[in-house]
Amino acid sequence: MNEFEKLTELFRKFPGVGTRQAGRFAHFIIRQNGDYVSNLANSIQRVKKSARFCSRCQRLAFSTSDEGLCSICSSPNRDHSLLMIVGKDADLDHIERAGVYEGEYFVLGGVLPMRDEEVSKFIRLDALERVLDYYLDSELQEVVLGLSLTPEGEYTNDFLAKKIEVLASERDIKISSLGRGLSVGSELEYSDKDTLRYAFMSRK
Amino acid sequence: MNEFEKLTELFRKFPGVGTRQAGRFAHFIIRQNGDYVSNLANSIQRVKKSARFCSRCQRLAFSTSDEGLCSICSSPNRDHSLLMIVGKDADLDHIERAGVYEGEYFVLGGVLPMRDEEVSKFIRLDALERVLDYYLDSELQEVVLGLSLTPEGEYTNDFLAKKIEVLASERDIKISSLGRGLSVGSELEYSDKDTLRYAFMSRK
Amino acid sequence: MNEFEKLTELFRKFPGVGTRQAGRFAHFIIRQNGDYVSNLANSIQRVKKSARFCSRCQRLAFSTSDEGLCSICSSPNRDHSLLMIVGKDADLDHIERAGVYEGEYFVLGGVLPMRDEEVSKFIRLDALERVLDYYLDSELQEVVLGLSLTPEGEYTNDFLAKKIEVLASERDIKISSLGRGLSVGSELEYSDKDTLRYAFMSRK
Amino acid sequence: MNEFEKLTELFRKFPGVGTRQAGRFAHFIIRQNGDYVSNLANSIQRVKKSARFCSRCQRLAFSTSDEGLCSICSSPNRDHSLLMIVGKDADLDHIERAGVYEGEYFVLGGVLPMRDEEVSKFIRLDALERVLDYYLDSELQEVVLGLSLTPEGEYTNDFLAKKIEVLASERDIKISSLGRGLSVGSELEYSDKDTLRYAFMSRK
Repeated sequence: MNEFEKLTELFRKFPGVGTRQAGRFAHFIIRQNGDYVSNLANSIQRVKKSARFCSRCQRLAFSTSDEGLCSICSSPNRDHSLLMIVGKDADLDHIERAGVYEGEYFVLGGVLPMRDEEVSKFIRLDALERVLDYYLDSELQEVVLGLSLTPEGEYTNDFLAKKIEVLASERDIKISSLGRGLSVGSELEYSDKDTLRYAFMSRK
Repeated sequence: MNEFEKLTELFRKFPGVGTRQAGRFAHFIIRQNGDYVSNLANSIQRVKKSARFCSRCQRLAFSTSDEGLCSICSSPNRDHSLLMIVGKDADLDHIERAGVYEGEYFVLGGVLPMRDEEVSKFIRLDALERVLDYYLDSELQEVVLGLSLTPEGEYTNDFLAKKIEVLASERDIKISSLGRGLSVGSELEYSDKDTLRYAFMSRK
Repeated sequence: MNEFEKLTELFRKFPGVGTRQAGRFAHFIIRQNGDYVSNLANSIQRVKKSARFCSRCQRLAFSTSDEGLCSICSSPNRDHSLLMIVGKDADLDHIERAGVYEGEYFVLGGVLPMRDEEVSKFIRLDALERVLDYYLDSELQEVVLGLSLTPEGEYTNDFLAKKIEVLASERDIKISSLGRGLSVGSELEYSDKDTLRYAFMSRK
Repeated sequence: MNEFEKLTELFRKFPGVGTRQAGRFAHFIIRQNGDYVSNLANSIQRVKKSARFCSRCQRLAFSTSDEGLCSICSSPNRDHSLLMIVGKDADLDHIERAGVYEGEYFVLGGVLPMRDEEVSKFIRLDALERVLDYYLDSELQEVVLGLSLTPEGEYTNDFLAKKIEVLASERDIKISSLGRGLSVGSELEYSDKDTLRYAFMSRK
């Protein structure tokens, strides 16, 4: 394998990148000037070293407070009575951009596959327990399960609901899941059967 | 215009049919045997004459009871405490196929455009009032607004909610709308901002 | 089956129309006024009766000359030295719209499936022979095989080439096929292998 | 800008990569183990240094002969009477994979934009002249212009044809372009008008 093929192989591991695009990326590198190429190589090395995970919500953060907290967890303006559990950083980012939520977060780091496997391989269960302890000592009133409405997301939602149930009932914490129903733009005539069921059951 | 062009023009009026497809339909007719062609021509004439609209819910029905009621409105097994108002026949059919609802229906016959126009040109307002009177004398407890979550659907939803409000509060009837939120299969990361807002607001 | 279902069944036979669209067509008919409906029913009956096939090129024509010729075959302005054989009316129409050809046509009425079957079930072989006789008595110099570059089109092209070969060599008629190669807009990098072969072989 | 943002910016320059995918690539890097990350960084640095351009056809090559020739230019089995000029490495690779051509190549390194600009900024004109000189001293009989059938490709084709014309006529070299017409799989009925014109003009 020559260097071009080696690099193409490495790029092929990138998410959503096939052989052809990987080859195009390698070609692209060759055509760039030396500055871009060494910046890229250095940045790739540094990003991994400089990546921090917020010690509370576990999201990826590059600047953290002295206690290792991300900008959300260290902000005095967030609502401590609400904790939303999401699957991954991109979900958290998307909800923040939408500007619809002002509480705290916890990032699971994944969702559970729908087969029997060691749960902690897929989601950060220990860290979740620590975070729940932390917020329970504070003013927590509601845990919002913010999972995607995919099979794995629903499975993870149900797993977490059961997991937190006892804790929640002891401390009088509400557990909720994001509402299900018609999403914006959807026409009744083309809505999926289960969506219609959720929409009817959650009418108000 | 020759007969081929005339027929193409007529087919072009069919919903979702452009010139090219209309021409293909006309070609298709020419290539069929005489039986198919006269069956089609007769069926087109008859379907209009034999079409009935249910005297209660206004949906299209081909066999009606002596009182002019469709199979749903004349069924003894539907739940008279619930009335769902939908935009069009296809919405009703789709909800029935999903099997998630056992109440009664009313078919508006359309939705309102989002500009000031004579409402009764777009939806069956008089018939709606008659139907509400009918069910109010019965055991009606809830009117479910079953509109699509499109701009026109939301506009119609709000128009109807306001319209029925007084009536409903006088008679202690609940007015609800289909639930809004994540629809089945949707990933948080790609959900639209307003859908996220609905999903958060309707969490439970 | 009620009239609605009967009509839906008949519409489902239309090319490219599925059950859902067929139902929408039936609904559409019901909502139209009586004039439209009887115009449509009449036009469907008449179009079949008034359809003529040009006695020479066999294309569908609605007004024909006294000799039963379509507007192209009866035009004094077409080039009688060229005869293009195409698969179907839509191909002829498309070439006419493109305005790239001024010769005469013959419409096969189909292409050959790629298995051993009675050829005359698929293409108008007798009529083709009559037309070739006609033009051979005239000034014919070239027969252009104007088939699609699909497997069936290529098979039909080869079948016709062999069929006409002897005739053509006796009378010194050229047989040609439409050029194959890069089509407009195509990028080399994404072109199919056989297209590249044709493009290279037909370079000029 | 933190390291994550810096790396996202650098990935955004990759061909066909938008902000969202660039962010996903950066996330991907962070999640990989140290080996993958340092392999990638090293490979990116090395690929540029180890890239050679064949001193004759100018294509990217990683192993070259002592005279700096790529495997094609140094092969004794290629046909020296044919020289195909292509736009970019990927075109050459694609033609080689198709196995339809056995002559020599020259890689322009781009195509000309359709406005008046300094040509040598876009294509390797000097290198082309050197290569033509080289092959003219040899047994060259035909230059094949192997450009895409896009507007820029056609413009570049015409530019090169004019450029080489005199040279070619003096030395009795044929200049050809890849054939244009129906590409494999295309149906006449849906072919673009210019493609039909080319197909008719290049019939044979």
